[in-house]
Amino acid sequence: MLKKTVSTSLAALSLLLGYQAQAQLVKYVKPIIGTERMGHTYPGATVPFGMVQLSPDTDTIPYEMNGKYNPDVYKYCAGYQYEDKTIVGFSHTHFSGTGHSDLGDFLVMPTTGELKLNPGTADAPRSGYRSAFSHTTEVAEAAYYKVKLEDYNITAELTATNRVGFHQYTFPASDQSHIILDLMHNIYGYEDKNVWTVLRIENDTLVTGYRQTNGWARTRTEYFAISFSKPFFQYGNKNFSKKQVYRGFWGKFNQSSNFPEIAGKQLRAYFDFKTTEGEKIKLKFALSPVSIAGALQNLRTEAPGWDFEKVKADGQALWEKELSKITIQSNSDEEKQNFYTAMYHAFINPTVYMDVDGSYRGLDQQVHQAKDFTNYTTFSLWDTHRALHPLFNLVQPARNADMVKSMLAHFDQSAEHMLPIWSHYGNENWCMTGYHSVSVVADAYVKGILTNDANRALDACVTTAHNRGFDGLNYYMDKGYIPADKNGSAVSTTQEYSYDDWCIAQLAKKLNRMDVYNEFIKRSEYYKNVYDASSGFMRPKLSDGTFRAAFDPLSTINEGFIEGNAWNYTLYVPHDPAQLITLMGGKKRFVQYLDSLFTMELPDKYFAETEDITRDGIIGNYVHGNEPSHHVAYLYNWAGEPWKTQERVRMILKKMYAPKSDGLGGNDDCGQMSAWYIFSTLGFYPVAPGSDQYSLGSPAINGAVLNLENGKTFTIEAQNQSDKAVYVKQVLLNGQPLNRLYITHSEIMNGGKLVFVMSTKPVKK
Amino acid sequence: MLKKTVSTSLAALSLLLGYQAQAQLVKYVKPIIGTERMGHTYPGATVPFGMVQLSPDTDTIPYEMNGKYNPDVYKYCAGYQYEDKTIVGFSHTHFSGTGHSDLGDFLVMPTTGELKLNPGTADAPRSGYRSAFSHTTEVAEAAYYKVKLEDYNITAELTATNRVGFHQYTFPASDQSHIILDLMHNIYGYEDKNVWTVLRIENDTLVTGYRQTNGWARTRTEYFAISFSKPFFQYGNKNFSKKQVYRGFWGKFNQSSNFPEIAGKQLRAYFDFKTTEGEKIKLKFALSPVSIAGALQNLRTEAPGWDFEKVKADGQALWEKELSKITIQSNSDEEKQNFYTAMYHAFINPTVYMDVDGSYRGLDQQVHQAKDFTNYTTFSLWDTHRALHPLFNLVQPARNADMVKSMLAHFDQSAEHMLPIWSHYGNENWCMTGYHSVSVVADAYVKGILTNDANRALDACVTTAHNRGFDGLNYYMDKGYIPADKNGSAVSTTQEYSYDDWCIAQLAKKLNRMDVYNEFIKRSEYYKNVYDASSGFMRPKLSDGTFRAAFDPLSTINEGFIEGNAWNYTLYVPHDPAQLITLMGGKKRFVQYLDSLFTMELPDKYFAETEDITRDGIIGNYVHGNEPSHHVAYLYNWAGEPWKTQERVRMILKKMYAPKSDGLGGNDDCGQMSAWYIFSTLGFYPVAPGSDQYSLGSPAINGAVLNLENGKTFTIEAQNQSDKAVYVKQVLLNGQPLNRLYITHSEIMNGGKLVFVMSTKPVKK
Repeated sequence: MLKKTVSTSLAALSLLLGYQAQAQLVKYVKPIIGTERMGHTYPGATVPFGMVQLSPDTDTIPYEMNGKYNPDVYKYCAGYQYEDKTIVGFSHTHFSGTGHSDLGDFLVMPTTGELKLNPGTADAPRSGYRSAFSHTTEVAEAAYYKVKLEDYNITAELTATNRVGFHQYTFPASDQSHIILDLMHNIYGYEDKNVWTVLRIENDTLVTGYRQTNGWARTRTEYFAISFSKPFFQYGNKNFSKKQVYRGFWGKFNQSSNFPEIAGKQLRAYFDFKTTEGEKIKLKFALSPVSIAGALQNLRTEAPGWDFEKVKADGQALWEKELSKITIQSNSDEEKQNFYTAMYHAFINPTVYMDVDGSYRGLDQQVHQAKDFTNYTTFSLWDTHRALHPLFNLVQPARNADMVKSMLAHFDQSAEHMLPIWSHYGNENWCMTGYHSVSVVADAYVKGILTNDANRALDACVTTAHNRGFDGLNYYMDKGYIPADKNGSAVSTTQEYSYDDWCIAQLAKKLNRMDVYNEFIKRSEYYKNVYDASSGFMRPKLSDGTFRAAFDPLSTINEGFIEGNAWNYTLYVPHDPAQLITLMGGKKRFVQYLDSLFTMELPDKYFAETEDITRDGIIGNYVHGNEPSHHVAYLYNWAGEPWKTQERVRMILKKMYAPKSDGLGGNDDCGQMSAWYIFSTLGFYPVAPGSDQYSLGSPAINGAVLNLENGKTFTIEAQNQSDKAVYVKQVLLNGQPLNRLYITHSEIMNGGKLVFVMSTKPVKK
Repeated sequence: MLKKTVSTSLAALSLLLGYQAQAQLVKYVKPIIGTERMGHTYPGATVPFGMVQLSPDTDTIPYEMNGKYNPDVYKYCAGYQYEDKTIVGFSHTHFSGTGHSDLGDFLVMPTTGELKLNPGTADAPRSGYRSAFSHTTEVAEAAYYKVKLEDYNITAELTATNRVGFHQYTFPASDQSHIILDLMHNIYGYEDKNVWTVLRIENDTLVTGYRQTNGWARTRTEYFAISFSKPFFQYGNKNFSKKQVYRGFWGKFNQSSNFPEIAGKQLRAYFDFKTTEGEKIKLKFALSPVSIAGALQNLRTEAPGWDFEKVKADGQALWEKELSKITIQSNSDEEKQNFYTAMYHAFINPTVYMDVDGSYRGLDQQVHQAKDFTNYTTFSLWDTHRALHPLFNLVQPARNADMVKSMLAHFDQSAEHMLPIWSHYGNENWCMTGYHSVSVVADAYVKGILTNDANRALDACVTTAHNRGFDGLNYYMDKGYIPADKNGSAVSTTQEYSYDDWCIAQLAKKLNRMDVYNEFIKRSEYYKNVYDASSGFMRPKLSDGTFRAAFDPLSTINEGFIEGNAWNYTLYVPHDPAQLITLMGGKKRFVQYLDSLFTMELPDKYFAETEDITRDGIIGNYVHGNEPSHHVAYLYNWAGEPWKTQERVRMILKKMYAPKSDGLGGNDDCGQMSAWYIFSTLGFYPVAPGSDQYSLGSPAINGAVLNLENGKTFTIEAQNQSDKAVYVKQVLLNGQPLNRLYITHSEIMNGGKLVFVMSTKPVKK
């Protein structure tokens, strides 16, 4: 791993030298986009796919308040909401754009004056250590965040390396300057979330420890090492646990003041300084999933010095390198902000989950060594298999290969013998439905991103898809569908398994494993078993084979669909739109169906139902914030009316994405929403990952160049493109007219040029 | 480590072959001794210093019942009380003879019939899985335990290797045979003691996992791997935690039945079999302090087969080898049972705390590699520095050297930079007073057991003794004593530090570090600062320099002494009895004082005060069960009346030790009481470890041979010895009359012969 780290560092260094001269793209990244309301992104500092996400938390709401479930708990998935007025502090781990939450480990807050060892509340901020702040002093860039903490007159700046959060605090003159370390703080906390915490004061500039939590990840432990640029002259810690027996013998020491170790469930610590006007105190905060020694080694390797500006510049150079993988030509700064912030959001997750020496904590809670790959986690696969991983296969193929290897290691360590559903820091949190890792695995092998271990990968897919104990799979295998009287998301899960099984069949075909192919291509048609011709929708079917009588195709509640309704989900057969169209009565009727979806007036009551979506996130009844609809706008291509695809896609781009704090129409979902934006802006979209085809749409830029990792370039040109000229008159590939509505993965990876000739009028041929 | 393991195994094998022919001494070992009332020993299976102590638990009392502290909680320090009528099950870790408790990890219980997944209570045993039993079917030997579980007609047999507990259960015919794994069970439990537990069912014969507890050891995690000799046909587990959020997503699985992993705070599992009459099911249960992989490797290395009888024989051969280090000649079987059971109890603790590959969990909760030593834990140093470690310096020098190295590693990992006080499975539990590890360290170097790292060892002692934050040390260093208005055990702790500091001075002198010597030899006299000439006792002194007016020299409560009173503690100056005698007014007065101690009638009220001691454990006011008195009977040697030493020692031997279930007069204290017995029976005792002298007493056997690890032998002969002939007329060392009341360590280690000529009358010269 050392060799790889050194060569990566050298590469980064040369790129830094190259890019410092021409840091052109980083300036378009606005991490503030999506930090208000539903986007659930965070504005803090991280490097591409970095293990640390050092970001301000403006509040957190516990799962329960006063014994009652608190439905607002999801507001703080990223720890930050733009409209809040106070900052609680800066914590080191955050999800980007999820709809469910966790993390928020290790909150640090600098203060002055009287020590308050509790966070206070938004209503009564001065009762605790949080501070008021204003967006006028706030700066959020890729790999850099800055804000003034008004209550203390402290300027806080944050940057990061892969595994180390770097803080720089500029203090006023004070004999009562503090740095608080709140080890109780959580995103989505509840009473017993903190399982155990250990804190050791190694000396007056080095603090280590770890914390285990039981949350969305059931058994998650994070280790840390903190280096201070200046010695603290005194420190203390307090154990806020309600009950902890055996404290008696520890009573030989005064544990609240200058006591070098403490362990328990609910700990907070503080470190005291005397500062002069404008004095800067810096912290380097390293994480490890493995051990304190690992955190120390990460610290020494990635952040050996104290030059904050250099680390910031290094981080921004890393971003510049990643953003440069696609360069766009556009007259619109707004377009560039949207595009490069989407690129930025697309390259935050998944996250590295490994120390510099290659060790990581596996699904079995034990320490493993990653021999020839970088280990990743944060796989929100229900979302990201659709466009994010396909985007990686274009512009992050080496990383995506490692992500697939991470999934295979997860399978090896799984007591249930399954590939990941939602891989979360050495845990499986089982969130959402389907087993879409098989889509990512199949897509990678079909597109040639990976070649080794192909049969092992196929076997893992097959074993996963054979788990009779898992979420209705026994019924699916035995009956061909999941009965709605046995499972809450019976219809959508049936459809998702059908698509996943088609992916397995594609991989089997590539490997000439025809027994597997035959089994799974047959299963890939099971979606037909939940199609109700009489109503024209996918519909809940009972154990006895009849469709359930009560049925509301507009409702998302208790109708057998997860995050969606029948109107949207009926279209979810991404692997075989042609067959779906036949089922639904032919192209004309299908076009009518799609038109209705995008234009109908949805009765008010249905808006209240929809999780994670704002009213602005719905066009007609099309819900862009819910991923199962992401391929829908492209379906007109199969129905003979491609101009409608072009029109709808451009409308969605305009409506659902704006470079403002509340500019995202729904959760970014770990980059999936951003990946949709990127593909659709470029003019094509992977309707069915596992296939090598990209369905053509309508490019929203004048041109773009994909700078591929294989050294080749793929150029896109949109002639006469504008907000009005959304229709495509002709497409040429490498100078030849293209008489199909898709391009292939090879056609891109071989390098070349794709030209769209645009028009202000629909081209109906 | 592998090399060492292989050579150890070969050595063990050859010894096994040798000893199986002549297993002479093991038969005298009665693990039942001390299992009733105060002895706190356990009857189960362990090998010398072994990491596993597989033993039946007859009950456990939680720290609190109905919100109230339960004073009986210490009854079950070893998990077993002889007078109980039921066995809850068999757990894998136990302390031997402590007065405070913990452990009791991983309870296994075989049952038949209806599954009851709770232990039941002593009052209502059939309400749970525990079983009635009778001592008539119980067999307890070194490395072997057997009992019939009456309620189920199951015979349970236990043996062990160092790191693996080996169970053999003989079942009746039943379709409802179960093996229950209770991961909630604890010795000294309380509501939040179980911090986290993970259980994985790897396949139908292999189960792994770990549990973390917060108890007397604050952060203790134990890993396990269980191999079954027969596949279970079904299994289940249940999470009894009151509250655990996020169970929803796990609801995709039916977790209580055949679900291969579970994690939470309060777990129990069961494994089901169909058995025929007399069918044996065996379990191999490996532990590791490091990881599941470590437990699996320990399992494969130490217990690769399924031959229960062979493992038992191997274990007993290991015991035979250790017991053979001292062979005694006696006409009394009772004497042999006492002696060899004392040897057995002396070689149980400390315990190995390391995997076969040399890794262990350190005080910093991180994994370390023991490079050239075996890592040990369970150092009850307040007790064991007095005679147990000195005994090791005679007959376990290689092990004691490793124990000292373990202590130095502990120091390196300590956030407080201290040698151990009470080392407990990767934790410091801080129990009792003083820093007596310096006594063990000094004694080992002074006696030449160790030579390497001597200066490092001395530095560790000095740093420990300089910790101003620790238990009154700041006052001791500043004022020369600990004020009784600042510390509850001010007087005894002052005295203990004085002795410990004398030990440091001895080591400094040996290394010619005279600055250290001068500092600590001066501190070694500080006991004088708490001697009150007017009353003739050590007495609580206040911050202002005056002795506290209210003073009861017979009371053990709030008089400034830990586990003792002024009458006993005044004699605690083991490093300089001559000076103490001068302080107390000369030899005549001193003899009177000692005589009074042993003969006075103690008013009833003082009996109630005395923890861990029975009325039978007190002779006059001499409390043998409290270790600070252990050297007292030998003090007549300094006062010119050695015949009284001889008389008192023989009386104590008779009164305080009997080969019965309630035969120990107090807690065995991890072998200290047993070590006292062994030394005193042989006729000499290490009054001041750190010195190379052993004070002579009165041998209770006709002869003995010490078979030393250096190949030499030291023979003891007691001519005309009997229960009446306790007085010593003459002593000859290697044929020459000995004109002193001590022998030296070198005189023993060089080999030779010590002859006591005994008499029925006191010899007053």
